[in-house]
Amino acid sequence: MDQSSKIVAHMMEHDAFSQWLGIEVQEVRAGYARISMKVRREMVNGFLVCHGGITFSLADSAFAFASNGHGRLSLALEANISYPAPVHVDDTLTAEAVELSIGNRTGVYQVTITNQDDTTVGVFRGTVYRTQKDFEEEIAKQGEKK
Amino acid sequence: MDQSSKIVAHMMEHDAFSQWLGIEVQEVRAGYARISMKVRREMVNGFLVCHGGITFSLADSAFAFASNGHGRLSLALEANISYPAPVHVDDTLTAEAVELSIGNRTGVYQVTITNQDDTTVGVFRGTVYRTQKDFEEEIAKQGEKK
Amino acid sequence: MDQSSKIVAHMMEHDAFSQWLGIEVQEVRAGYARISMKVRREMVNGFLVCHGGITFSLADSAFAFASNGHGRLSLALEANISYPAPVHVDDTLTAEAVELSIGNRTGVYQVTITNQDDTTVGVFRGTVYRTQKDFEEEIAKQGEKK
Amino acid sequence: MDQSSKIVAHMMEHDAFSQWLGIEVQEVRAGYARISMKVRREMVNGFLVCHGGITFSLADSAFAFASNGHGRLSLALEANISYPAPVHVDDTLTAEAVELSIGNRTGVYQVTITNQDDTTVGVFRGTVYRTQKDFEEEIAKQGEKK
Repeated sequence: MDQSSKIVAHMMEHDAFSQWLGIEVQEVRAGYARISMKVRREMVNGFLVCHGGITFSLADSAFAFASNGHGRLSLALEANISYPAPVHVDDTLTAEAVELSIGNRTGVYQVTITNQDDTTVGVFRGTVYRTQKDFEEEIAKQGEKK
Repeated sequence: MDQSSKIVAHMMEHDAFSQWLGIEVQEVRAGYARISMKVRREMVNGFLVCHGGITFSLADSAFAFASNGHGRLSLALEANISYPAPVHVDDTLTAEAVELSIGNRTGVYQVTITNQDDTTVGVFRGTVYRTQKDFEEEIAKQGEKK
Repeated sequence: MDQSSKIVAHMMEHDAFSQWLGIEVQEVRAGYARISMKVRREMVNGFLVCHGGITFSLADSAFAFASNGHGRLSLALEANISYPAPVHVDDTLTAEAVELSIGNRTGVYQVTITNQDDTTVGVFRGTVYRTQKDFEEEIAKQGEKK
Repeated sequence: MDQSSKIVAHMMEHDAFSQWLGIEVQEVRAGYARISMKVRREMVNGFLVCHGGITFSLADSAFAFASNGHGRLSLALEANISYPAPVHVDDTLTAEAVELSIGNRTGVYQVTITNQDDTTVGVFRGTVYRTQKDFEEEIAKQGEKK
């Protein structure tokens, strides 16, 4: 398992909300992630379509996996999302995060969310702040805290 | 109970995800909503801080309640969020949505998310498309479908 | 000249600010535009690099050309931009707008701005409201007003 | 003249594009700026209303003045804008930038743009990266380069 895969595996293991979402990691490498999940009945909003926060959350997890895959602890500063099409219960969503740019201190990522028919249901872009903290050390610290 | 309160009560009743989040409605009127929730252990990300999708989802629900409170079915087109400060387990978050503008077809809302110490932990802005569908009719249709 | 080209030619002719920017239209069709410009000394900010508003404005023009190319008057509701790399005087910028989604009332476009070395210096996404007004009629009305 | 005023005065002096826009600085202090300008005929788009890039550019200048007023060179990472109402030739626009949050490395600002009737015509939010560079030193370096 390469470094990016190890990091994302560690993140997923501790990421209780991504587990609740039912996220499965399809492919990760530094600066890239593709993950998927199935929309359940408990994820709808008051109109019985998928809550916008679910689509955003899936994209946000892909964004976190792609940016942290470089081995430097990276924190989201901001993000935006457009919803080109509605999402329904039982849809299978796939989020693919790609790196638009990376510098010493910040990185920009775009995430495209598609459903099982390959219709784009969300377009997301986000910026991370790249701390100087090494991922391995952070993992070690978390271990001590438990 | 005024019309906006009725609409939001109906939305909350069917909004399984807002229920999972533990959202409580504090105040609603046409174009305005203030809601709150407590961050639970199952809402953290891989760094054991609150997943960005949770903060976004709370804001998104406030946005939906404020915009639909006018009695016209309103659908999110896009939204953006900045994260000025981290959110932790056991924090109580309050999201307040205010209307920045409203036209015949679209509306713009800003949502500020604060924690129990009144620190701003999220700033959100979103645009809705206002359909011609009356809320009462939509509620009736949903009842028939069940 | 096809309809999209005619519309964009009309827009450019009346678009005093795009003229000031020195925009040249490279290619347009319904839902797509590629335009370019050269950064001049009068476009810098207080740090002597290109003002962020210039990069945004170029993208905004590409966005307007792509969305109006369908023949329906389309108005910007909102837009966002990330700046992955700085822009300098004498850089030649190219903005390429593609359609992410289009519905009866709204459309979403992404614009990528690159410099002469093919470095991405801006990533822009925007939403338009598509009015029911036909472009040809609007042109006729503008002619009468003069 | 306090430090923030000096910094903004220096920025305006070198900011050729803000000069072209006709920006007048009304009030500045660390983390805050209020500036205004009048929309001229050469600022319209192809529909003879004010080009969206002009409104954005005014907001962007206010954002730069507010964030750099702290004395640390601050660079825009990203920004977003919503357009609640159209802007016309001869409108006088005022942009007021306030600080939503500031940390060691990043800051978030909101800018509200109003016209002469106090109608909100733009709502903007942006993130800066705060370099470790002191403003005074940067000014000195620019002086040498000339």
